[in-house]
Amino acid sequence: MSRSPEYPPLAEISSFAPDVLRRYLDGNRAEMRDQLRQLLSQPEFAPVTTEESVADARERTLRWCRTLARAGYSGLFFPPAAGGKGDPEGFFAAGEIMASHDLSLFTKFGVQVGLWGGSILHLGTAAHHAKYLPPTIALELPGCFAMTELGHGSNVREVETTATYDAATQTFTIHSPNYASGKSYIGNAARHGRIATVFAQLIIHGERLGVHAFVVPIRDASGRPLPGITIEDNGLKMGLNGVDNGKLWFDQVRIPRSDMLDRFAQVAPDGTYTSAIENAGARFFAMVATLVGGRIAVGSAAMAAAKTGLTIAVRYAARRRQFGRPGEPEILLLDYPTHQARLLPHLAASYALWFARADLVQRYARGEGDGRTVETMAAAFKAWATDHATTTLQRCREACGAEGFMASSRLPGLKSDSDIFTTFEGDNTVLRQLAARNLLGELQQELRRPGGAGRIAREQAKSWLGWRSLPARWFRRGSVTALEWQRSILAQRARLSLLELGQAIRAGRKRGQDTAAAFLDCQIQAVQAVDAWTEAFLHERFVAGVRACPDAKARAVLTDLCVLFALDRIQAAGAWLTARGFVGASQLAAMQRETLRLYRSIRREAVGLVDAFGLTPEMIGAAIALESTADEAHDEEGARTLSHLVVQ
Amino acid sequence: MSRSPEYPPLAEISSFAPDVLRRYLDGNRAEMRDQLRQLLSQPEFAPVTTEESVADARERTLRWCRTLARAGYSGLFFPPAAGGKGDPEGFFAAGEIMASHDLSLFTKFGVQVGLWGGSILHLGTAAHHAKYLPPTIALELPGCFAMTELGHGSNVREVETTATYDAATQTFTIHSPNYASGKSYIGNAARHGRIATVFAQLIIHGERLGVHAFVVPIRDASGRPLPGITIEDNGLKMGLNGVDNGKLWFDQVRIPRSDMLDRFAQVAPDGTYTSAIENAGARFFAMVATLVGGRIAVGSAAMAAAKTGLTIAVRYAARRRQFGRPGEPEILLLDYPTHQARLLPHLAASYALWFARADLVQRYARGEGDGRTVETMAAAFKAWATDHATTTLQRCREACGAEGFMASSRLPGLKSDSDIFTTFEGDNTVLRQLAARNLLGELQQELRRPGGAGRIAREQAKSWLGWRSLPARWFRRGSVTALEWQRSILAQRARLSLLELGQAIRAGRKRGQDTAAAFLDCQIQAVQAVDAWTEAFLHERFVAGVRACPDAKARAVLTDLCVLFALDRIQAAGAWLTARGFVGASQLAAMQRETLRLYRSIRREAVGLVDAFGLTPEMIGAAIALESTADEAHDEEGARTLSHLVVQ
Ligand SMILES: Cc1cc2nc3c(=O)[nH]c(=O)nc-3n(C[C@H](O)[C@H](O)[C@H](O)COP(=O)(O)OP(=O)(O)OC[C@H]3O[C@@H](n4cnc5c(N)ncnc54)[C@H](O)[C@@H]3O)c2cc1C
Ligand SMILES: Cc1cc2nc3c(=O)[nH]c(=O)nc-3n(C[C@H](O)[C@H](O)[C@H](O)COP(=O)(O)OP(=O)(O)OC[C@H]3O[C@@H](n4cnc5c(N)ncnc54)[C@H](O)[C@@H]3O)c2cc1C
Repeated sequence: MSRSPEYPPLAEISSFAPDVLRRYLDGNRAEMRDQLRQLLSQPEFAPVTTEESVADARERTLRWCRTLARAGYSGLFFPPAAGGKGDPEGFFAAGEIMASHDLSLFTKFGVQVGLWGGSILHLGTAAHHAKYLPPTIALELPGCFAMTELGHGSNVREVETTATYDAATQTFTIHSPNYASGKSYIGNAARHGRIATVFAQLIIHGERLGVHAFVVPIRDASGRPLPGITIEDNGLKMGLNGVDNGKLWFDQVRIPRSDMLDRFAQVAPDGTYTSAIENAGARFFAMVATLVGGRIAVGSAAMAAAKTGLTIAVRYAARRRQFGRPGEPEILLLDYPTHQARLLPHLAASYALWFARADLVQRYARGEGDGRTVETMAAAFKAWATDHATTTLQRCREACGAEGFMASSRLPGLKSDSDIFTTFEGDNTVLRQLAARNLLGELQQELRRPGGAGRIAREQAKSWLGWRSLPARWFRRGSVTALEWQRSILAQRARLSLLELGQAIRAGRKRGQDTAAAFLDCQIQAVQAVDAWTEAFLHERFVAGVRACPDAKARAVLTDLCVLFALDRIQAAGAWLTARGFVGASQLAAMQRETLRLYRSIRREAVGLVDAFGLTPEMIGAAIALESTADEAHDEEGARTLSHLVVQ
Repeated sequence: MSRSPEYPPLAEISSFAPDVLRRYLDGNRAEMRDQLRQLLSQPEFAPVTTEESVADARERTLRWCRTLARAGYSGLFFPPAAGGKGDPEGFFAAGEIMASHDLSLFTKFGVQVGLWGGSILHLGTAAHHAKYLPPTIALELPGCFAMTELGHGSNVREVETTATYDAATQTFTIHSPNYASGKSYIGNAARHGRIATVFAQLIIHGERLGVHAFVVPIRDASGRPLPGITIEDNGLKMGLNGVDNGKLWFDQVRIPRSDMLDRFAQVAPDGTYTSAIENAGARFFAMVATLVGGRIAVGSAAMAAAKTGLTIAVRYAARRRQFGRPGEPEILLLDYPTHQARLLPHLAASYALWFARADLVQRYARGEGDGRTVETMAAAFKAWATDHATTTLQRCREACGAEGFMASSRLPGLKSDSDIFTTFEGDNTVLRQLAARNLLGELQQELRRPGGAGRIAREQAKSWLGWRSLPARWFRRGSVTALEWQRSILAQRARLSLLELGQAIRAGRKRGQDTAAAFLDCQIQAVQAVDAWTEAFLHERFVAGVRACPDAKARAVLTDLCVLFALDRIQAAGAWLTARGFVGASQLAAMQRETLRLYRSIRREAVGLVDAFGLTPEMIGAAIALESTADEAHDEEGARTLSHLVVQ
């Protein structure tokens, strides 16, 4: 068997050293990242791309989680006082690496540490920490985060499970009043969970006090459901079959008063209710603010999965040839402009997300996680990153043709596991509305400041008309690639989108609508305004990340990538911008030309740019993406199979 | 257990009778469609949404195919002379219904009848028909269509398998010279196939004569591979696991001279080669023209899967409520503008595709399948329809939240089975280039006609400048919804895109590039020009389909849907159109307003519009989409499970 001609060696020489770029990207947790990559490259963690039963996938994923817990990764999240290592930034880094390897692993580990453990940490107080966190960190006490119900997914505030206080016995009775109040899709519930944080409507002396969190044991040590607990398996899913999602119903289950998580509100033995947060709405939002960290983690995980997909598709495109002139070698897929258009903008976006993520993680680690700004950023980032993952992995599959459809390419697994990331930890459409409300709130505050309204009106007039009368140098050929021009366009778009949204809502109110109705009518505009805001934020972070890169060669390539990201986003918003006079026909044409030029230059760096993501060959785990191994294995196997008859 | 409040009855009253619309859509094969729907609603064909091994899925799919063959559906495709029923139009209708139910069934049935059987019919002659077609129709002789190789997918012309003629023995020797020349992804090869049409380079007396097709037995009656045949299983795939795809290598396998399929070229006993088609390229294209029917079928199947997905997502959205004002029922998902935006344009596009498909099938049935026009249309239709399916099913999954991720919703299966439709039977990016070349060829012919060049130049000048000076009545408020305005815009866009593409290629040639290089540089533009052409074609067919609808009420709703389709496509091309002065800021704003208005009116008809697709509840097979059953089953089950402890 001669070497297969369509798989030449991956002779891709980038102008920069991928390893140098990787070290820059890895940032201040570089060493830990490398250690975890090494651990995940051990045979125990070999990606599974052959048939596996759901039951086996669940047990394997649990084993993997245990290995990581033993290696200390579960402790990173918690403060030393609670038996942890006090390194949330390290925890986020570890989560991102886990996700780049396997999303079931990331999700199951995240349910245990971030959701169940996180709810104890953030909603509970010292006694809960002492009692529950050590066995949680050791993974001796697998737990659940039981918020969603069959009837109420996004609208958590209306969950129907009740927690009724009985002063006589000093207990809460947890109860599911109907089928729809069953908790559903709960990770760890179908098989491994022993205990759950249950979100329920607190009722004291007949008074409803809103959603609160309670710790409820669900299984005994032998794994049997406890009395009053009904568990059902959610069964086969599109992906994430390594995670055992299940449904839970409670039939008058009593728990001691001490098992209410009482950081934000307390119930005294006699049933007296106290809370430092007066407003019930604010109290609810304080409780669900615990999801902010999860959103950063989930957005990062989706981004990581997209990066693994891009690593596979770009490396395949740098080896696979198809069509060409007679007598010449066929053309590399990566040399087709359509192929570049399918992959390179997504590569650029992955880098943009990377720098935005680093900023968010640092803010979170600095303790800004409870603030409105980080809430907005995390919601917007999560929504954009998870949509990006869905589109990117789709393009990667298609770019690999039939090979991309084979489980062995890993793209099927990456695609189906990541698909739900747009839904869980906050549905994207709902999160964008949350972000829009926050941004509108900020705008309103600006307006209320002395002179605010006039200033905003002037600004708006300027952005509507101003661009047409800009100095001619903006529009000289080539300036569409100027970082500053791009920044202005993206920032003005973000600002004007929000102003227009605010005006549209005000117009609705003037017509007599209440705010909710007016907002609903502008829902599509709101969602779009948030994406405009997010893209300006991503670009700003990307520019900062490029400027901070200490290696000149890598910086040059990152600059191109950043320019491509902006061109791609500006062109995608082309109709909106053209209609408002921000760009004209000649700019659009110039942007098309410059995009093609950038494709050609970034194409040479593409393999280096995915290699800088730092995945080991074992983590990539797809023969189509690995130099020579595929061929050599194939050649040997080919020789073997041709000399025998193989009955499958 | 009280009835779950989030699942109210589906009280959706459309202004038209869905059954009347269904009968119109079903067209002249309405009766057969209904019979097949009934057959597929039998318990034997119940959708499988729980865990199933690949081996079981394959055997089940084969059983399903046998049932359909027994019921006579495999015979439709073939002329009576070959033991068939001579009803290709009926065959396409049956394929579309099968696809709406299960894509593995459609694919395996299609491999057997359309690909294997089709190759015998179209590439073979009477003796082949007599020998192979009767057992093929009876599914006693499961066959393969072995064209693709590991090394050559899209570029079929360069397959490396050889067929060397030996005059002494009057045999061809079929041989795989290297690993990469192994046939791969071949349906029926891994398990059930006995025989294959193998595409190989014909060599006679050392001369290479290009790709030809040969019939090669691969397994004996007991299912063991024959001597010289090596078979490998492609293994687990993202979807279509009911189809047994495999790899095939040939080690000097001899077949008789009579088993070359000799419709387009013949080899005499002494090795003399004859063909009525002089040109080798034309001969190759005549042979692969057999794929045209397959492309229509595959595009239709993808469209059918999208329709099943839309049926599920729209019906769920008409039952599921989330968020609302205190004290009022929560809001139906279908009433959220963002939700309408996620589903309704795809619903409109499904209808557009439906009418285009009917046109294509009729042309094919009239025998126009070998012509350039149908080749272009089929390629463009297949590419657009399969991309549409991928996006639509993605939206449907997301619109159903967590439920859409559960296998029980059927959306995971629909998504992962349909994903490869953008790749097989001609990769979409490659097909769009084929269509672009055909369209450019037509344009060139026009130019060569006397006066052609001048006419085209005038036309182009008019479209560039003309719109700006159009009578003001075009731009009065509301006219953006006029069918004629929309038709003009879409048609002008298609025409101008092609003209610009032609000019760009000519510019490249003037700079000294050869045609291939110039085309490659304009590849992205070419692909976009084809989409512009396709959308004009779809719109034209949609308008004709609306006008022909005999029921006034249904026609009114279809008109709205058709207007929405055009608005959606025109807005998607907004930047291109704005830059060329076709539409301005006020039209864009008017289109946004009209789109929202149409969402609101079509929203009321949405359930009727998906019900008109005609799927039976058994075929839908997803509890989340079926009225009451889900609740009632849940309620009973809920009651049952709550009174027992269930250990999973
Ligand atoms: C694999 C998996 C694991 C999970 N793990 C957990 C877990 O461990 N713990 C837990 O508590 N939950 C878990 N969940 C549940 C998850 O958090 C919910 O799926 C999510 O909150 C969305 O709720 P839903 O699925 O009910 O969708 P819904 O809220 O019903 O939304 C359905 C659709 O309607 C749209 N929609 C809803 N409201 C609006 C609106 N106001 N405007 C416009 N559109 C709207 C949404 O965009 C969505 O497309 C998990 C889910 C899955 C699938
Ligand atoms: C489930 C399944 C069933 C199948 N069944 C059969 C069967 O029964 N019989 C059979 O013969 N084959 C079968 N196939 C093979 C199928 O027809 C091929 O996958 C298809 O022709 C594409 O070839 P490829 O996968 O090698 O992709 P490639 O041709 O390698 O293309 C890979 C990527 O490169 C891009 N590309 C390629 N050329 C160009 C270009 N010129 N310009 C721009 N981009 C380009 C493509 O768009 C694609 O994204 C099957 C495949 C699958 C997955």
